[in-house]
Amino acid sequence: MKCKAAVAWGPGQPLKIEEVDVQDPQAGEVLVRMVATGVCHTDAFTLSGEDPEGIFPAILGHEGAGVVEAVGEGVTTLKVGDHVIPLYTAECGECKFCKSGKTNLCQAVRETQGKGLMPDGTSRFSINGEPIFHYMGTSTFSEYSVVPEISLAKIHVDAPLEKVCLLGCGITTGIGAVLNTAKVEKGDTVAIFGLGGIGLSCIQGARMAGASRIIAIDINESKFEMAEQFGATDCVNPKNFDKSIQEVIVEMTDGGVDYSFECIGNVQVMRSALECCHKGWGESIIIGVAGAGQEISTRPFQLVTGRVWKGSAFGGVKGRSQLPGYVEDYMNGKIEIDPFVTHTMSLEQINEAFDLMHKGESIRTVILFDQK
Amino acid sequence: MKCKAAVAWGPGQPLKIEEVDVQDPQAGEVLVRMVATGVCHTDAFTLSGEDPEGIFPAILGHEGAGVVEAVGEGVTTLKVGDHVIPLYTAECGECKFCKSGKTNLCQAVRETQGKGLMPDGTSRFSINGEPIFHYMGTSTFSEYSVVPEISLAKIHVDAPLEKVCLLGCGITTGIGAVLNTAKVEKGDTVAIFGLGGIGLSCIQGARMAGASRIIAIDINESKFEMAEQFGATDCVNPKNFDKSIQEVIVEMTDGGVDYSFECIGNVQVMRSALECCHKGWGESIIIGVAGAGQEISTRPFQLVTGRVWKGSAFGGVKGRSQLPGYVEDYMNGKIEIDPFVTHTMSLEQINEAFDLMHKGESIRTVILFDQK
Repeated sequence: MKCKAAVAWGPGQPLKIEEVDVQDPQAGEVLVRMVATGVCHTDAFTLSGEDPEGIFPAILGHEGAGVVEAVGEGVTTLKVGDHVIPLYTAECGECKFCKSGKTNLCQAVRETQGKGLMPDGTSRFSINGEPIFHYMGTSTFSEYSVVPEISLAKIHVDAPLEKVCLLGCGITTGIGAVLNTAKVEKGDTVAIFGLGGIGLSCIQGARMAGASRIIAIDINESKFEMAEQFGATDCVNPKNFDKSIQEVIVEMTDGGVDYSFECIGNVQVMRSALECCHKGWGESIIIGVAGAGQEISTRPFQLVTGRVWKGSAFGGVKGRSQLPGYVEDYMNGKIEIDPFVTHTMSLEQINEAFDLMHKGESIRTVILFDQK
Repeated sequence: MKCKAAVAWGPGQPLKIEEVDVQDPQAGEVLVRMVATGVCHTDAFTLSGEDPEGIFPAILGHEGAGVVEAVGEGVTTLKVGDHVIPLYTAECGECKFCKSGKTNLCQAVRETQGKGLMPDGTSRFSINGEPIFHYMGTSTFSEYSVVPEISLAKIHVDAPLEKVCLLGCGITTGIGAVLNTAKVEKGDTVAIFGLGGIGLSCIQGARMAGASRIIAIDINESKFEMAEQFGATDCVNPKNFDKSIQEVIVEMTDGGVDYSFECIGNVQVMRSALECCHKGWGESIIIGVAGAGQEISTRPFQLVTGRVWKGSAFGGVKGRSQLPGYVEDYMNGKIEIDPFVTHTMSLEQINEAFDLMHKGESIRTVILFDQK
């Protein structure tokens, strides 16, 4: 079949709307008609050329929601008409990682996914017979995408896809990092560095957990209003101080916070986030993705005196088994998504969505596909 | 009173046996007659002058055991004749740290202890009226030492002090890092970097926990025999490989170990220890103390993909409430100490103990004080 997709032809180039050929789903694969997709910083990171794993030409996008249009041979857990969120972290339930009970980082399709290919080592997208690569196993910037069965979460059929698509990445990542990775408890203090979609979601998660103090940190003060709406108790601009932000936070909290979250991808901020944690037990969680080759550093004394440095990917959430619960939490009013959707537009306008993000004017733009 | 002590007059100088004046214990303090003390790398580190907190002249030593000789005003939990192990990490039971339930890093006497003084800001040691500083709150290289009540663990009166003195630092640190900090479980795989007293104690802890694979790593292969006696299943010399030790361990263990322990204080090894951990859940525990100003570093991707970097001080063990149990575990045969004691000598020979340690010829030398 043919459909419209936004194709990334090369690093630094705007996306181009093209008519692409989409091959039928093969064994264990599913054809998804996309209804909506968010535009995330990770898409921009890959498009910029800084992502060492970036491959072109490709169809980007990893924050989508849609409807199953067809299933390949042997697909048993999904049927035509099911509503789904594509997962860039699959959940096969059978690999060493899934069986460990300790991580959501299923490795079943990791290798081919990283190469922009389906598990059989080929692509389902092409233009004039030339293959176009998949991206993160999801490629949601296309009217139709082929996704492995194990990379699709089946969600409640009544969930509004133009909202819950954002649970495919940013919001789940932030909330999950707080609830699953850090396991913040009632009364804990937290610091959140960077108030984009992930940071605001961390704030939301911290409020859900009952944190007593939620310190939101950004150098762009226009983010503070929304941070407070989501539950931040303090907003801090590091530029307003002569001392380091870690010193500021340690003083504000009589020794440091119980948990901190880095939601930017800046290795210097990752250090600050660790060092603003309380001696003896403070834990810092890295969520942001740093540029290629960049390294974090600190004095080992920070760890020997009881701080813990860890990271979180997709909020530690297992996509197939746990994401449907997040969707229901949204439907029950426990999770807020609507304030994140600052803009909606058509696929044709997708480059504007990237522009708004780069200018810091949007939290999330949701692309709405034409409904046929 | 007067007694013999080994005094560190300045960095890099041999210790000198002196007759020192010891003041009576003040309120909340206890006079301890030392029976035995180990000589540890941390003493050598301070004596070398590399320890930024090192102060001279001082009476070093922090791995001792002795008998209560007198108690100051208000001391209620100890009486003359009690057998005790001095603690460089106090346990007051009342500070924010003790009450947190999350750490053993009691801060009650931390500030004065770091300055070589008793909690009232003065020293109990002097020579010709000139004060000699305390060290780590313990100063066990003296026939008599004054120690805060909250820095003494009361132990079983039948425990052999010339053995259990080593529970005052190295052995407890290693076993505790495995059992308390990492919480290694039956069947887990572990890698232990550096086979001194701490590393061998980690091996012992891992065996106690039921680890299925205990990989011991050192560039000095003469340590391997004892490592195997303590329970190492594999011994690896990084110099025998063309690739990094983390690659070697990852290959040996099909993806990396569940837990690793750095027992050296080398920041490059700390990185290797982290990076040989299994993606998704591997945790690396820093125990070694690095030189002043040195920093650890890695790519944040290591943490985002599920590895955890933490540290351990005194094995996470609360001295007053938990160390007596370690002593009883030794008496019951659960913990081995005897093989660590490779040499014993008198206080007068203490510089030989440092020489043996620097040459790597001893695990621990225990200094036995003359019994009067």
